[in-house]
Amino acid sequence: VHLRLALLGCGNVGRAFVALAAEKEGELRDHYGLTLGFTGGLTRSAGGWLASTSITAGELAASGWPVARQAVPAVDCRAAELFEGEAVAFATACPADVLLELTSLEPLSGEPATSHVRTALAAGRHVVTANKGPIAHAYRELRALADRRGVALRFESTVMDGAPIFNLAEFSLPATRVVGFRGVLNSTSNYVLAAMATGQSLEAAVAGAQALGIAEANPAYDLEGWDAAVKATVLANVLMDADLRPADVSRTNLGADAMRAAQASLHTGRALKQVVEARRSPEGTVEAAVRLQTLPAADRLAQLAGMETALTLHTDTMGDLTLVEGEGGPGQTAFGLLADTVSIVRQLTAGGPFGER
Amino acid sequence: VHLRLALLGCGNVGRAFVALAAEKEGELRDHYGLTLGFTGGLTRSAGGWLASTSITAGELAASGWPVARQAVPAVDCRAAELFEGEAVAFATACPADVLLELTSLEPLSGEPATSHVRTALAAGRHVVTANKGPIAHAYRELRALADRRGVALRFESTVMDGAPIFNLAEFSLPATRVVGFRGVLNSTSNYVLAAMATGQSLEAAVAGAQALGIAEANPAYDLEGWDAAVKATVLANVLMDADLRPADVSRTNLGADAMRAAQASLHTGRALKQVVEARRSPEGTVEAAVRLQTLPAADRLAQLAGMETALTLHTDTMGDLTLVEGEGGPGQTAFGLLADTVSIVRQLTAGGPFGER
Repeated sequence: VHLRLALLGCGNVGRAFVALAAEKEGELRDHYGLTLGFTGGLTRSAGGWLASTSITAGELAASGWPVARQAVPAVDCRAAELFEGEAVAFATACPADVLLELTSLEPLSGEPATSHVRTALAAGRHVVTANKGPIAHAYRELRALADRRGVALRFESTVMDGAPIFNLAEFSLPATRVVGFRGVLNSTSNYVLAAMATGQSLEAAVAGAQALGIAEANPAYDLEGWDAAVKATVLANVLMDADLRPADVSRTNLGADAMRAAQASLHTGRALKQVVEARRSPEGTVEAAVRLQTLPAADRLAQLAGMETALTLHTDTMGDLTLVEGEGGPGQTAFGLLADTVSIVRQLTAGGPFGER
Repeated sequence: VHLRLALLGCGNVGRAFVALAAEKEGELRDHYGLTLGFTGGLTRSAGGWLASTSITAGELAASGWPVARQAVPAVDCRAAELFEGEAVAFATACPADVLLELTSLEPLSGEPATSHVRTALAAGRHVVTANKGPIAHAYRELRALADRRGVALRFESTVMDGAPIFNLAEFSLPATRVVGFRGVLNSTSNYVLAAMATGQSLEAAVAGAQALGIAEANPAYDLEGWDAAVKATVLANVLMDADLRPADVSRTNLGADAMRAAQASLHTGRALKQVVEARRSPEGTVEAAVRLQTLPAADRLAQLAGMETALTLHTDTMGDLTLVEGEGGPGQTAFGLLADTVSIVRQLTAGGPFGER
């Protein structure tokens, strides 16, 4: 199978994906009969291009696009032409089997990424997104659209980078009901809380996280629990068949002041963590919450080092099953995109319906 | 798809599997188009039976076999006849698509389970085994035989009950090299060490584990590291393409005397664990070891409660990925058998080759 990919957004994650696809070219061909090629790209800084013939991952990586900010990848003997339209037009026009949605997240609206995904699915393309917005804000609609068009909608990289959560649930936990979950999903707040526990000020800890490239210029989105709330929404909607929006997730005892106050009154041997929890209520609805919690040392989450994340699924078949990701980053997120791409090929080869759970 | 199953061995795990298959009947039919039926069973205490028409899981559970020790399940209107041969003859004769190998383990030889599995595969049956012996002692031979016969050989329940390790690696970690692993895989030794840490004697702790049903009458197999060595062999051979046998796994500082001595000299805040580790050496061979280790509190393994187990995979794509199983037991092991059965159906439906990795 040859899959033509188009990149909508190409920052750290996109470039890590191109590098990984180049590195794993032989294994993908030998084990899955899969070759990947790139037929389009669009970024805000470098502009867009389309190619009628696939550019290999190695060629794209070597071309310097988009870092060199040339309009079109410098690849010999291959027709790549300038694309000057908007992202939605790109999602329609790109001659690709799979659109990779890698633009930045607007947590409160999920746009414009949701429009990109909707457009690509409607055009009959598979979509792999690392962007949480579309799944947090429009999962049911997009899932139904993908099913109607007979294409795949995959999003492993939306929670805990590319750690296999959704692929695990879909392929390795058959006939299993997820009745709740609990985890630490935001690495910036975890890094900051761990640094504060060693005596650093919140400001110094945030600066440290920014220097490592894990925190945004404005860390409020992480520290006030919005990132975790968006992830909780994705998990609840996909794994527990809920229909939440990020604003439905209870967020209490969060933000810089709460973190400083909790750290000041923390007892030795305990740890502060920004904890995500979800449960099905007796009425059958799913309730999710993000809170700053003081945990005893024996709690598995208490022990997570600065950049680690963890998720415990409460299930009816396996009891509690916990997945812990060591240090994450763009390389791990890129792996989730690759895993999703391979899942598409496996389903294509099987001739099975997409979106089946 | 209808799959006919035969049970070779039917202790706690087999009965939990029958109960789970009955409980999940509707979900298996609705989500996977799968119905399961039982066409044979053989245990040492209750003897054997064969049925030309499938007995449902609910009927088999209701029949009381094998606990009631009747020779043939008491199911109305269904022809089940006595089978009086040996286990190898049963593996040949049972009119089943899938043989479930659930006999007891002989860790040093892997027999007679390996013969059962070999016979069933040679007869063109898929095999799902919860028995570590065949995979630890004959994985390459049995894998090649299964591939030649175009049937499946699955063994999720051999390590950490049914926690999805092998299914995770096969379906959700594509193009990933496992370069090593580290874990706590033996729950009896973990329970005993945790109880000793609270001041109990080793003898009292072992008695407690036996009362809970997690330790055998002779706990030496667990405490001296053989159970962990067999599991390390399975993991190394399957995930790292090694060709080890349990006797190749280094076992040091193990057993009752070593545990007492280590506990006596343990410093506050540290924990004793029976740790399994494997690495690829610079020469390319895989080296595996089981040892009693003193771990600092910050080590993820230090924190495992009595009956928990954990495995960290060191990978080239995702870095370190850790799976933690909460309290395990026959129900979790039964789930692994069900997951393996569903994987067989998925591959059957896909028409893809079995054994492909």
